[in-house]
Amino acid sequence: MTIADSHLDLGDPLPIDGTAIQMRLAEAAIDLFYERGALATTVRDITHACGLTPGALYNHFASKDHLLYLVVRDIHRQVDEQLGVLLAGVGDDPTAQLTAAVKFLVSHTAGFKKRSRVANREFTLLTGSRRQEVTALRRHLRDRFAEVILAGAHRGQFQLVGGQDLGAATMHAATITTMCVRISEWTLVNYPLTMEDLQDQHAELALRMLGVRRD
Amino acid sequence: MTIADSHLDLGDPLPIDGTAIQMRLAEAAIDLFYERGALATTVRDITHACGLTPGALYNHFASKDHLLYLVVRDIHRQVDEQLGVLLAGVGDDPTAQLTAAVKFLVSHTAGFKKRSRVANREFTLLTGSRRQEVTALRRHLRDRFAEVILAGAHRGQFQLVGGQDLGAATMHAATITTMCVRISEWTLVNYPLTMEDLQDQHAELALRMLGVRRD
Repeated sequence: MTIADSHLDLGDPLPIDGTAIQMRLAEAAIDLFYERGALATTVRDITHACGLTPGALYNHFASKDHLLYLVVRDIHRQVDEQLGVLLAGVGDDPTAQLTAAVKFLVSHTAGFKKRSRVANREFTLLTGSRRQEVTALRRHLRDRFAEVILAGAHRGQFQLVGGQDLGAATMHAATITTMCVRISEWTLVNYPLTMEDLQDQHAELALRMLGVRRD
Repeated sequence: MTIADSHLDLGDPLPIDGTAIQMRLAEAAIDLFYERGALATTVRDITHACGLTPGALYNHFASKDHLLYLVVRDIHRQVDEQLGVLLAGVGDDPTAQLTAAVKFLVSHTAGFKKRSRVANREFTLLTGSRRQEVTALRRHLRDRFAEVILAGAHRGQFQLVGGQDLGAATMHAATITTMCVRISEWTLVNYPLTMEDLQDQHAELALRMLGVRRD
């Protein structure tokens, strides 16, 4: 699928290309995984929340782990793909790209807090090839940031801590994405900021880390 | 206990003031909690790792949850108390204090990776008054950073994103402590840095976030 074909919007029902009943089960599962973690959530909890018998889940997913895998994978796919679309549309100036990317990620971690927290906490429960697939998606997302940062370093827009190379760019990318992801762990009542303020402040912190001076 | 009375060093056996057998069980538990999470770790796993029968754990802890609580609480207590000792000894210059505090936290999250990850991931499993106690310790640690940051803002050393007030100082403190804690999640093979480089780079990133200019 090319970027132009993208149909994945943030907040679209999960799993991608799922059936209506799969989406209902997945939505209930995300609520429960967010509240108590996937390990402590039973198949019975999920089906009960949908008014179904426990056995009904197995008509639509191979197992609870399979449901978790699809949900976690597809949250990552939505974010990664939408970020790609955004970066392709914002022009080739690294400072503008980095600013847009940070604001986008904040819009997900603060605007879709349940999904963000489930994706970023519960992926550690996945094993084998499922874990590898999600880890690859996470690296891909981080590397999108690293690529922008390295381009900015090469153009002299960014002065990285530790050197103007890929290693330093990756370290900054990981630090900046973590900063954004952390928002999904906040008790937002402690930080009474609007979405726009959150986005602006995190973009400013990211640019500061990259050595950009604004005055 | 006053700071001068402190006997809590990073890496000291846990739980604090525990018996030798409690410490053996706790060390095995930390390894297992780190590898697979506390929820997926059974009492049998812990006692087996110590060459004991499952029932033996209950001679030394009320339950697996009690063991988890003591371990998580005491890791936080060690870090918080040692940070207090450090800050008291480093003089009253906010830039020097902030630099020392970041380097200290990095020395824990990178040097005691298992403990750091267990404390920062598994505390979410605690409930009721135990959770409240650990949350209070985490806030106390964060507020030590916020206090230094606010002092630096008032002296004109730091230019905070969002204003020179306690709210902004707390936001920066949370961002900086999260940045340091994240190191415990790294696959360090991807970041072949010495401890000194890790400390220096994270201190530099923190000062950049605080608007400090070095040249």
